[in-house]
Amino acid sequence: MISIDSVSNERIKSAVKIASSAKTRRQTGMFFLEGLRLCRDAAVTGYHIDSFFVSARAYERFREDADFIAEKSKSAFIISDLVENKLALTQTSQGFFCLCRMKQDSDISEIDFSGKYIALENLQDPANLGAVCRTAEALGISGVIAEGGCDIYSPKAQRAAMGSLLRLSVIRCDNLAETLSYLGENGMKLYATTPDDTAEKITHCDMQGGVVSVIGNEANGVSDEIFELCEKITIPMLGRAESLNASMAAAITMWEMMR
Amino acid sequence: MISIDSVSNERIKSAVKIASSAKTRRQTGMFFLEGLRLCRDAAVTGYHIDSFFVSARAYERFREDADFIAEKSKSAFIISDLVENKLALTQTSQGFFCLCRMKQDSDISEIDFSGKYIALENLQDPANLGAVCRTAEALGISGVIAEGGCDIYSPKAQRAAMGSLLRLSVIRCDNLAETLSYLGENGMKLYATTPDDTAEKITHCDMQGGVVSVIGNEANGVSDEIFELCEKITIPMLGRAESLNASMAAAITMWEMMR
Repeated sequence: MISIDSVSNERIKSAVKIASSAKTRRQTGMFFLEGLRLCRDAAVTGYHIDSFFVSARAYERFREDADFIAEKSKSAFIISDLVENKLALTQTSQGFFCLCRMKQDSDISEIDFSGKYIALENLQDPANLGAVCRTAEALGISGVIAEGGCDIYSPKAQRAAMGSLLRLSVIRCDNLAETLSYLGENGMKLYATTPDDTAEKITHCDMQGGVVSVIGNEANGVSDEIFELCEKITIPMLGRAESLNASMAAAITMWEMMR
Repeated sequence: MISIDSVSNERIKSAVKIASSAKTRRQTGMFFLEGLRLCRDAAVTGYHIDSFFVSARAYERFREDADFIAEKSKSAFIISDLVENKLALTQTSQGFFCLCRMKQDSDISEIDFSGKYIALENLQDPANLGAVCRTAEALGISGVIAEGGCDIYSPKAQRAAMGSLLRLSVIRCDNLAETLSYLGENGMKLYATTPDDTAEKITHCDMQGGVVSVIGNEANGVSDEIFELCEKITIPMLGRAESLNASMAAAITMWEMMR
């Protein structure tokens, strides 16, 4: 492995930019991962790892893992403490970082019309994005449909997802309304969640066959444009509805889809 | 209101200690809250606020809220930017802080034997503690039984709970096994969650009448001592069980209790 000691190294500067900017990620088609487990998951699941960076200290401690990831990467580098500090987004860095190429987002044509999908409209909080994807994987959801506003390649979302975003089938779309219309025309049931208690109770909905359930933005919920395409459904609650956050609502919705 | 300009003021030093140390919280019976909404929730729900601190800037901007909280507090102080920086635990401080007296924890005798309770055994992550309590409030759970190891008075747990910990009935107990035995003797059904798929499926459990469901520690799950007292139940999954985190498992469990 080649050594990098300087924070002004071009590769390091580029990695920092990809880590910090959603726009740069879109332009380059690359994303940044931090942590032994996420780097390992990317290698195991067959992501194209363009650059792998490991600190000298981490290499000494986790040599086997580092060699495994390096072998699967196009280029691998040993970095100094200074460079590690520059790259680290967490306070307790493990000294493992990589730059991966985004997969060609699963094409809409890959959607199984008899599957169960969760669609995310403009979900903003990376912790919520990550949590929803973890739960989707646990419950065996067929895939996640992410509208463009959901920054699923942000390092925070990837970290919160604990590798599930690398393994799940993620379908990205720029126009969620168009995608949903297409899926509805192909016989899938379309539901959109709302705290509005006049909507159909989720426990009364037909979840047989192909289903897509939409979870809306944390502050504004599902947009009117999307509501027009879907049946409104609600989680009946005895307590304070405002207390149910987006990832918990998504968990209960996915559970009812798979139950 | 009295002004405090120095970070070496005794009240400020004591507030910092209560915010940072679980031991000091136990010894003093006090806890620390940060943020306009949490301080307001404490005042509205009738907590005894010993000291309320507001930055000069925040007082100018949110005078009505600050005056309302100050009126409900034993003492109220205007603090300098320096003092605000000393107290702030978040990066974007709103300039509102208070020290509250812990409520006498609801006595075990207050438990409604026909209610639905969630019991937390040694849950460590304050974000999980907060999330479980938010969801418990939303779904209308009767109360939360928190074993001593759960630091529900930590500022992080209070923040993640978004005020629900101030409103919920929280029963603290030093010996969860004893508490559960007592509740079982009084006719409550006792369940403990596990990823072990040979356990009874949660969808097949009798959730009528009084029920307590135990959620275990993030890393180790429910302890053997507690399992011996309860029926083991599991959330059937098609995907990777390890992906379901404690707060999501708790959300689905509480949903099934209330469904």
